[in-house]
Amino acid sequence: MDLNTLATPAAIIDVPRMQANINRMQTHLNQLGVAFRPHVKTSKCLQVAKAQEAAGARGITVSTLKEAEQFFAAGFKDITYAVGIAEAKLPQAADLMRRGCALKIITDSEESARFIGAFSRTHKVNFSVLVEIDTDGHRSGVLPEAQELPDIAAALVSGGSTLAGVLTHAGSSYDYSDQDVLINLAEQERAGCVRAAERLRAAGYECPIVSVGSTPTATRAQTLTGVNEVRAGVYVFFDLVMRNVGVCTLDDIALSVLATVIGHQKEKGWAIVDAGWMAMSRDRGTARHGTDFGYGQVCTLEGTPLPGYTVSGANQEHGIISLTGGLDSAIAERFPIGSRVRILPNHACATGAQFPEYHALVSPGNIEVWPRFYGW
Amino acid sequence: MDLNTLATPAAIIDVPRMQANINRMQTHLNQLGVAFRPHVKTSKCLQVAKAQEAAGARGITVSTLKEAEQFFAAGFKDITYAVGIAEAKLPQAADLMRRGCALKIITDSEESARFIGAFSRTHKVNFSVLVEIDTDGHRSGVLPEAQELPDIAAALVSGGSTLAGVLTHAGSSYDYSDQDVLINLAEQERAGCVRAAERLRAAGYECPIVSVGSTPTATRAQTLTGVNEVRAGVYVFFDLVMRNVGVCTLDDIALSVLATVIGHQKEKGWAIVDAGWMAMSRDRGTARHGTDFGYGQVCTLEGTPLPGYTVSGANQEHGIISLTGGLDSAIAERFPIGSRVRILPNHACATGAQFPEYHALVSPGNIEVWPRFYGW
Repeated sequence: MDLNTLATPAAIIDVPRMQANINRMQTHLNQLGVAFRPHVKTSKCLQVAKAQEAAGARGITVSTLKEAEQFFAAGFKDITYAVGIAEAKLPQAADLMRRGCALKIITDSEESARFIGAFSRTHKVNFSVLVEIDTDGHRSGVLPEAQELPDIAAALVSGGSTLAGVLTHAGSSYDYSDQDVLINLAEQERAGCVRAAERLRAAGYECPIVSVGSTPTATRAQTLTGVNEVRAGVYVFFDLVMRNVGVCTLDDIALSVLATVIGHQKEKGWAIVDAGWMAMSRDRGTARHGTDFGYGQVCTLEGTPLPGYTVSGANQEHGIISLTGGLDSAIAERFPIGSRVRILPNHACATGAQFPEYHALVSPGNIEVWPRFYGW
Repeated sequence: MDLNTLATPAAIIDVPRMQANINRMQTHLNQLGVAFRPHVKTSKCLQVAKAQEAAGARGITVSTLKEAEQFFAAGFKDITYAVGIAEAKLPQAADLMRRGCALKIITDSEESARFIGAFSRTHKVNFSVLVEIDTDGHRSGVLPEAQELPDIAAALVSGGSTLAGVLTHAGSSYDYSDQDVLINLAEQERAGCVRAAERLRAAGYECPIVSVGSTPTATRAQTLTGVNEVRAGVYVFFDLVMRNVGVCTLDDIALSVLATVIGHQKEKGWAIVDAGWMAMSRDRGTARHGTDFGYGQVCTLEGTPLPGYTVSGANQEHGIISLTGGLDSAIAERFPIGSRVRILPNHACATGAQFPEYHALVSPGNIEVWPRFYGW
């Protein structure tokens, strides 16, 4: 099995690049003196998470209880489920804890804290709960100065759950490309989360965990005083969005889609490949950026980017390769029928999710199949 | 198992709506006197395809050889693989034929026809091949008047394959909303495909199959003289893109995502649900339309659309519901924590693909699990 014979489309992990990404982030966070809890929603893959653990990660972050179940079954015991939990999911969370999983769940409202507390009381289960803090206004969380912050803690503790700490995610970092802005946002994320922890401590709660992170802010954080844990996900593969945000180069991107050329429209300068949006995902995250990569950056089979050639259009199983800002009248000679390319994705989390498994290119000619989880 | 207790997010099929969509299209095409070969890439689900077959469909269309394998294993024998085939996939196609599958494959170039012919000769397998015709310039295919058209047929036949006919797909129909334009495009699709068949017949080839279709053109076709087969896929569920194209209403859409409210940002008028882009897909097909539904139209649990409420933003497992063009200061009362909504998708093919199975709502309180295929 090699890149010339593998059935296409296929999701290829460049393992040396992935390992370099893992090592770089782990070293950076070691230097900042914080624990690293990678978000495994990006890969949903045991082999990837094990490489992160081997490099020094302490625990994992998940986006669904299914991920928690699957990683727990594979031996990961310290898991944070970093999406506000619905009441109907508490029995599944409680069951994981009873089986020995050190699961942490999150809340961002007194209302939700009350039902967690009530479940604790009724079912005699002591949930470890992090309060989600909103440090950049992009999604969920309570503001660091929110009046209800101690009330949330009280609702949890009075029911018999434990306030495990505070957690924030400055996801708006994906919208920037100025590195000074990212440095400032990382500081805002840190300061807001630490402030929330201080308020809870002032109200009498221990609040042991102070957890922050997104790939851009984790990468650009200069100091993390008061923080003891960082989370990041997409850094493990990186992608074109992260390249445009400025926290990686094209040469760091460890995930690509292997595709075969199946036809041309020569007058239009199009080569058609068998990787459409079902393979690349519908993510057009670079559409609003300075460099729009369409549905992906085209590379040679060896992974060298071909400047200007992107997947400019996509149907379900067809991708259209063309030259940005021009018409390549020799497109059929450049990409002959039957030839193969690799396509870097806009968003590694979304593209990976389209595939039941990765093909991990450990070294030239050495490809392993790494399954990934799917669904809820 | 009912909509109040099902784990969220879940992909819900409204079976009576689906059946009505199937019946409507089948009746329309029966009246036009053509065979209907539904494209099962939309559902990738046996139960859905069996309902289409029961209504009168003759054969199915697939977008991957994996679909062909899975549907063949379930008893579907007449299958058209409607994506230009890569040479490396010919052994798998040949194997399906040897096992009794009446598989048809497609080509749109002399070069590809030559490798199909060469494989036929070497491996003694008589492929049934349709030539893909480009009738609207949106993707693949040879023009009806292309000089090479008879050469493609010659390359196939000289190798020992059979020219089964011509096939076209006017996919540009998704870009329109004027019904007269769609009627004209359906005629353009018909006329171009028939013209290609006539040229091949004039060159001495029988060209038995003349196959056209997309959901909008199939819906709006007035006459189909010279055509004997129509293909369409998304009509089975419909979606918000098709609603904007004008070929269905919101009340025809048979696929929705069931989600639970997990939080609010009251000052912003946001309700947060546990269906993000991983559930809805990244498809933003209505973004360039007159009505932009964000990541989906919010409905009550019973499926009644709530005008103006869409999923205006999405992260991997978070969807943000807000009111278009205003701020609903009572958002938390309208969508309390723990309450459930159903969300109509932009693109049923893309949203369905995010789920390992559908939950088919056969009647109130009667939900069946219908698995779907995944990957390549």
